Amino acid sequence: MYARAPSADNLASGQTFLAQYILDRLVQLGVKQLFGVPGDFTLSFNDVIEQDTRIRWIGCCNELNASYAADGYARVKQAQLNRAPDESGKIQGGVRGLAAMVTTFGVGELSCMNGIAGAYAERVPIIHIVGVPSTKLQKGHVILHHTLGDVGGRFDVFKNATSEMTCAQAYLSSAENAAAEIDRILLAALTTARPAYLTLPTDLVYAPVDASRLQKPLIPSGPLDERLPTGKTLKQETEERLAFVVDQIERLWEQAEDPIIIVDACAVRFGAGHLVEDLVKATGVRWFVTPMGRTILDEDPSTGFGGTYVAQLSDERIRGAVEKTDLAIMVGAMRSDLNTGLWSSKIETKNIIELHSNCTLVQYATYDKISFHLLLPALARVLKRKSSIPASPTLPLVPLPAGQPADNLTHDVLWPLVGQYLRERDIVVAEVGTAAFGLLTLPLPKGATFVSQVLWGCIGFSVGATLGALLAAQEAGFSRRVVLFVGDGSAQLTVQEVATIVRYGLTPTIVLLNNEGYTIERLINGPTAEYNDISLWDWSKLLPLFTPPSGSTTKPGAYFSASTRGELEAILGDEDFARSDRIQLLEVKLGRLDAPKALYRLGEVTRQVNSA
Amino acid sequence: MYARAPSADNLASGQTFLAQYILDRLVQLGVKQLFGVPGDFTLSFNDVIEQDTRIRWIGCCNELNASYAADGYARVKQAQLNRAPDESGKIQGGVRGLAAMVTTFGVGELSCMNGIAGAYAERVPIIHIVGVPSTKLQKGHVILHHTLGDVGGRFDVFKNATSEMTCAQAYLSSAENAAAEIDRILLAALTTARPAYLTLPTDLVYAPVDASRLQKPLIPSGPLDERLPTGKTLKQETEERLAFVVDQIERLWEQAEDPIIIVDACAVRFGAGHLVEDLVKATGVRWFVTPMGRTILDEDPSTGFGGTYVAQLSDERIRGAVEKTDLAIMVGAMRSDLNTGLWSSKIETKNIIELHSNCTLVQYATYDKISFHLLLPALARVLKRKSSIPASPTLPLVPLPAGQPADNLTHDVLWPLVGQYLRERDIVVAEVGTAAFGLLTLPLPKGATFVSQVLWGCIGFSVGATLGALLAAQEAGFSRRVVLFVGDGSAQLTVQEVATIVRYGLTPTIVLLNNEGYTIERLINGPTAEYNDISLWDWSKLLPLFTPPSGSTTKPGAYFSASTRGELEAILGDEDFARSDRIQLLEVKLGRLDAPKALYRLGEVTRQVNSA
Repeated sequence: MYARAPSADNLASGQTFLAQYILDRLVQLGVKQLFGVPGDFTLSFNDVIEQDTRIRWIGCCNELNASYAADGYARVKQAQLNRAPDESGKIQGGVRGLAAMVTTFGVGELSCMNGIAGAYAERVPIIHIVGVPSTKLQKGHVILHHTLGDVGGRFDVFKNATSEMTCAQAYLSSAENAAAEIDRILLAALTTARPAYLTLPTDLVYAPVDASRLQKPLIPSGPLDERLPTGKTLKQETEERLAFVVDQIERLWEQAEDPIIIVDACAVRFGAGHLVEDLVKATGVRWFVTPMGRTILDEDPSTGFGGTYVAQLSDERIRGAVEKTDLAIMVGAMRSDLNTGLWSSKIETKNIIELHSNCTLVQYATYDKISFHLLLPALARVLKRKSSIPASPTLPLVPLPAGQPADNLTHDVLWPLVGQYLRERDIVVAEVGTAAFGLLTLPLPKGATFVSQVLWGCIGFSVGATLGALLAAQEAGFSRRVVLFVGDGSAQLTVQEVATIVRYGLTPTIVLLNNEGYTIERLINGPTAEYNDISLWDWSKLLPLFTPPSGSTTKPGAYFSASTRGELEAILGDEDFARSDRIQLLEVKLGRLDAPKALYRLGEVTRQVNSA
Repeated sequence: MYARAPSADNLASGQTFLAQYILDRLVQLGVKQLFGVPGDFTLSFNDVIEQDTRIRWIGCCNELNASYAADGYARVKQAQLNRAPDESGKIQGGVRGLAAMVTTFGVGELSCMNGIAGAYAERVPIIHIVGVPSTKLQKGHVILHHTLGDVGGRFDVFKNATSEMTCAQAYLSSAENAAAEIDRILLAALTTARPAYLTLPTDLVYAPVDASRLQKPLIPSGPLDERLPTGKTLKQETEERLAFVVDQIERLWEQAEDPIIIVDACAVRFGAGHLVEDLVKATGVRWFVTPMGRTILDEDPSTGFGGTYVAQLSDERIRGAVEKTDLAIMVGAMRSDLNTGLWSSKIETKNIIELHSNCTLVQYATYDKISFHLLLPALARVLKRKSSIPASPTLPLVPLPAGQPADNLTHDVLWPLVGQYLRERDIVVAEVGTAAFGLLTLPLPKGATFVSQVLWGCIGFSVGATLGALLAAQEAGFSRRVVLFVGDGSAQLTVQEVATIVRYGLTPTIVLLNNEGYTIERLINGPTAEYNDISLWDWSKLLPLFTPPSGSTTKPGAYFSASTRGELEAILGDEDFARSDRIQLLEVKLGRLDAPKALYRLGEVTRQVNSA
């Protein structure tokens, strides 16, 4: 069950151990941190990981948090590639913001199913490697711990459960096809930007496999030289289709008087940022983002950036600027309720061109296999510059309202102050709820990265994601502040992962919005209901609970609290605080029913939908 | 989406609201606490719950913990029924230790999948009610938050995933068949002692349903009056089969010189304790438990109790006493690895009679449909008293080794001292790992209840389970101490639920075994590996993090720490500490590789299995 490391002498020439093959592939794909919780079925694999200096094991407090950390890690790496794609990403459109995690059979893997499903929804590729019982024990159908205990032992239940929430699965059962299977699921994850699932039985950890495949890097690409029944190659056929689609779009573009570009989730996830940038520069039109498209490029008005568009949940000025368009090029659109203001956009389909990772929609027509990786460069070449469009629109900002230092803090004051506090290249992690809605109308500084779960919308995500974001930032070798905004109710789900942040000497600034409960829910239903209340915590005691490892040189953590405007201004304006060179927790005390304007609007809208 | 409560005037005579029907059924079945985390798809249901004074909403920090709490709640109620069955349980063998929990669609339900699967494995009936989007939104296949975001919206993914880990599922889609569907899954949970799954769309919360079914209580029973092809009724046929089986067993019993009874998991879960007790009293033979059968009855040598039997992981004296038997009646056997000392029992099949909830095995023969509920009373009537067996064997106890107060604490000393500390009617919750193994050879006091996850074996379980155990004990109206034994690594997975314990004014004693990592894993693989280390916490800071609600009259929590034998003796011997009338955390500092003897043995055995 727990294979001992055999000598490498046991390997024939050109062979490597199966577990090593997995690590080699992950390292090739830029994975330098492996998140997880060890379990008895992962221990041999952990031995291999611990001996590999290229990849670091990040032991998390629990598996759900590990999956969130993997998710945050992948997102920050994706964000980097949107700005500075590597060659393979530029050419092939391969996703390179990959993450990986390890859990143990049954108990471990099920604990992070929510995190994996969230990554599936939000298009974040995570390789989930599960240490499972040996092939011998599985074949024997014995009643093992971590099984469901049925007579006749079902070993396929957990992998069945995950199969609809991952893009590909490989259940390794012998060394024979293992390398090919691993490559298959890795390519699937890279191609679809979704999690994939791999089971590694304990007795295969040290199984010898052919290492020659490692010579050929994994780059997602279609079988473009495949010959079609018509005699043409797929590449030829695709070029012809592409030319036709470009022609259709060019005609619409010529007629358009106020074209815009709206950038959305999948553009971020598939690393298409630099391609969008080229198109924006070539055409000079205004561009907007949805909540899920945020920070793909600098939210900088001088580039034509017009703000975050969420239809009826937007700032009215942004909505007006968007919906007067007569041609919207939407890149990577994700039409979920909260990403579209409950589907309230007034742009008509005949004025929309949708560019996706695997197809293009022009008005009412769908063109399969024309990805934005192909189409965006072509459009940047042919679409005429619309010089009538002002290159530098005034981006509406939410102003800081007048007030006194002794005023109780409200969201109206909080977010403009946060806007002043944030600086270039910050990584901003926003929990769903008041935090994400508060940041909605706040343009982020240049080089900033926004991490939030708009579609899946699971509370608790942001704490784990912050761990991953911190490690991705550290790995990139330059110093970026990571600022987490999270409500107290949300933080309670996953709070122990702050310990892991302390353990690895990382230094986020955690802004904890304390409103004594689930305020987003209070605005929807039950404003004073007890079920929207939570246990009360003395948050000043949180950081002292976690002890840095002996020998740590990281500065001790610090706690701050603000319940008035003046207190918050003083803290956010403090040089020491701004430096963020220690973990710091800023508790911001807010009213139980106070919320950003967009969230009030969401409550109203939801009630309208219900009474309809 | 969020239906408002209509007036009860909207109901026709004999009708009730669907959500109310669910609560009425749960209340009938003894469920008085509903564990969960609210989400936007549960809020209307939460309104109904909040208005029902018979059932209490227990808001947990996260869903996994809520499922553990539900599990612990059900187990303590099951334990009570083993001692004092209600009439229906006595007659029909219906499980009455039922629990229920509520989560929201997707994000919530997936977060507790591990807890539900654990309940499935360990035979704990939990009704998992999931608030899901309205039937209209589901039919529209829109891309909602908490969905996977696929075009064409798949709303069946999560229920598919859970279907293999629950005994029954009902996906309510209209009011029409809803009451019958609810009854069906409740009966399935009661009959199989496993979790069941129910989706409640937001628009059906206030749907009127026929309330007349509520007049008939749900009691699991086979269709005994069903007429078979032979012309007999099933009842007649069963009686004939039963007589035959009893006859077979009686013949073996006559010949047996050293018969024993071994009580296991399913006897506990199906409330068969009192039936076992009758058989033990009638026959006067020695009886033993497996780890999963613990505390079904008093572990009292004067009743013939001989100890906890786990084959090669047992105390050698217990193993000897068991394995010299020539006839073992095993009630509710669960042949999992850790429950059987990795299947190392030397009792031969020809000397075994297995009584299960749905069949009986006599030597090599299987008799379907003969449950222990039928068979145990019959055996108690006919099996002769074996007066040659001493009624009061000496139960081997692990003695307290000699030592000095200044000695560093070790497991050898810890558990005998714990044995002195424990008292009658204590509820002992033991985390898998050093805690569960330490308690293995320690007989528990009269009336005690042992809660542990031996088969599923998921670390983190015990913290949530303690919350549920506390509420079940409180509900029963008499004061019982709840003592949790948990390692530091395990506690970190689910630690926030201590906040909920404080919130509801509950007063467990938490014994935290601090060995700076996953010691059970260190004994299996990687004794000094980094991956078996964890983040270090200053546990004295834990309880101060949680604030009791204003107006709480519960005494403030207290922290204790012991790293020497003398310190531990002083604390455990203290009157105030023993009273357990406040939440108290006792941190016991132990060596990183120190463990109970049985756990060392497990490590050795595991290595033998591997090298074979």
